[in-house]
Amino acid sequence: MKIPVIEIFGPTIQGEGMVIGRKTMFIRTAGCDYSCSWCDSTFTWDGSEKHLIKMMEAEEIMQTLYQKGGDQFGHVTISGGNPALLSQLSRLIDLLHHEQIKVAIETQGSRWQSWFTKIDDLTLSPKPPSSGMKTNYQTLDFIIDSLQHRQKGEYSLKIVIFDEGDLTYAEQIHKRYPQAKLFLQVGNDEIGMESSDKLMEHLLQKYEALIERVMTNNILKDVRVLPQLHTFLWGNKRGV
Amino acid sequence: MKIPVIEIFGPTIQGEGMVIGRKTMFIRTAGCDYSCSWCDSTFTWDGSEKHLIKMMEAEEIMQTLYQKGGDQFGHVTISGGNPALLSQLSRLIDLLHHEQIKVAIETQGSRWQSWFTKIDDLTLSPKPPSSGMKTNYQTLDFIIDSLQHRQKGEYSLKIVIFDEGDLTYAEQIHKRYPQAKLFLQVGNDEIGMESSDKLMEHLLQKYEALIERVMTNNILKDVRVLPQLHTFLWGNKRGV
Ligand code: SF4
Ligand code: SF4
Repeated sequence: MKIPVIEIFGPTIQGEGMVIGRKTMFIRTAGCDYSCSWCDSTFTWDGSEKHLIKMMEAEEIMQTLYQKGGDQFGHVTISGGNPALLSQLSRLIDLLHHEQIKVAIETQGSRWQSWFTKIDDLTLSPKPPSSGMKTNYQTLDFIIDSLQHRQKGEYSLKIVIFDEGDLTYAEQIHKRYPQAKLFLQVGNDEIGMESSDKLMEHLLQKYEALIERVMTNNILKDVRVLPQLHTFLWGNKRGV
Repeated sequence: MKIPVIEIFGPTIQGEGMVIGRKTMFIRTAGCDYSCSWCDSTFTWDGSEKHLIKMMEAEEIMQTLYQKGGDQFGHVTISGGNPALLSQLSRLIDLLHHEQIKVAIETQGSRWQSWFTKIDDLTLSPKPPSSGMKTNYQTLDFIIDSLQHRQKGEYSLKIVIFDEGDLTYAEQIHKRYPQAKLFLQVGNDEIGMESSDKLMEHLLQKYEALIERVMTNNILKDVRVLPQLHTFLWGNKRGV
């Protein structure tokens, strides 16, 4: 079964989350079951770049990765949209592992796939209230319980924070899944801003404000608070 | 045996390395067996702040941590100077663990201490040629082998990069210890700069240049490339 791919690029650094800074290739799959108010990848699901979606075999994706990354990479990140919609990713993951390439994935945790247990760096990013989405805790409970007992690699929770309501949501998630590593990420509320300098200044201020809020919080003790490094480096530019 | 402490502060975020972004308290010990040309903590060993060094019992340190951090922290980072000069840290580490507090440490890898195996997040940062220091590979081999077989927590290598020679050194280290996670960090060559904005702009440019160099390198494949987030946020200011 083919995989709907909207872009493949790299090597570059992973700008956020549990393997922040990691040299990696990116594969972005098309399609999402959510429609977050502040989604920075609407082009993966809103039809605006439908013409760019390529239906690719796993082998074809491997070829493209090697064309673009040569022998300079050992890590691939699959993001979306929501890659967890695609059961057929299993084969691609096996091909990558066969080449000693590690695999990271990011999904909001709305769907389970049995290949989750094979992922080296799995990020679950349940969406806080500001997104307009509702968390299905039954599914999330099941996913986290399964990962806890059966996953070979590492997994973590990442919550993007835009406001106080999101912080309260993060507290709830942290209490519900105390065993899971928790990353809090500054929300980018200026995804249309063109000036990289201004964006950086703005996001750095927001990062500092988030740090301040978290440092005095006695529920959010075992957490990591991070910005998106790629927005510091390249603003809202895509494919870098 | 008392511990020579030069500052205790936090909670704040860990700005660099393997647990970048982690909410943590900092304990900075005095004394170093190195004298790196670009050391950003010379005050820990050059005598300039000798009057600030307090000889503290482990229990006293615990009290100070709770005074400053209340019930808002679950992680403590011990840095220096070189904390690995101090065998007496063992007791402090046990007290922290007894309170379910995790412990990180950073050392250049010039000395072994048996308490290394108890550390949750251990960073070994051997110093590249630009530092003017020489790596004792016999010691480093012994430390990494011991950690590999006996450490309970996680460990990683972190190399600060100032120039091409440092990058070559990083390649050598990566080939010698392929099993160890490797972090490359942008060197701060402007530790006297007072303007945070200018420093940030400068370091961001250097970060981007380092990324470019590493992305096209086929030896440095499985690496993470990171800036020091605290320099972005607070410039060269101390104690934040
Ligand atoms: S889950 Fe991710 S890709 Fe889907 S709408 Fe939300 S932010 Fe966008
Ligand atoms: S090892 Fe660290 S503290 Fe010691 S001189 Fe070098 S940079 Fe400074």
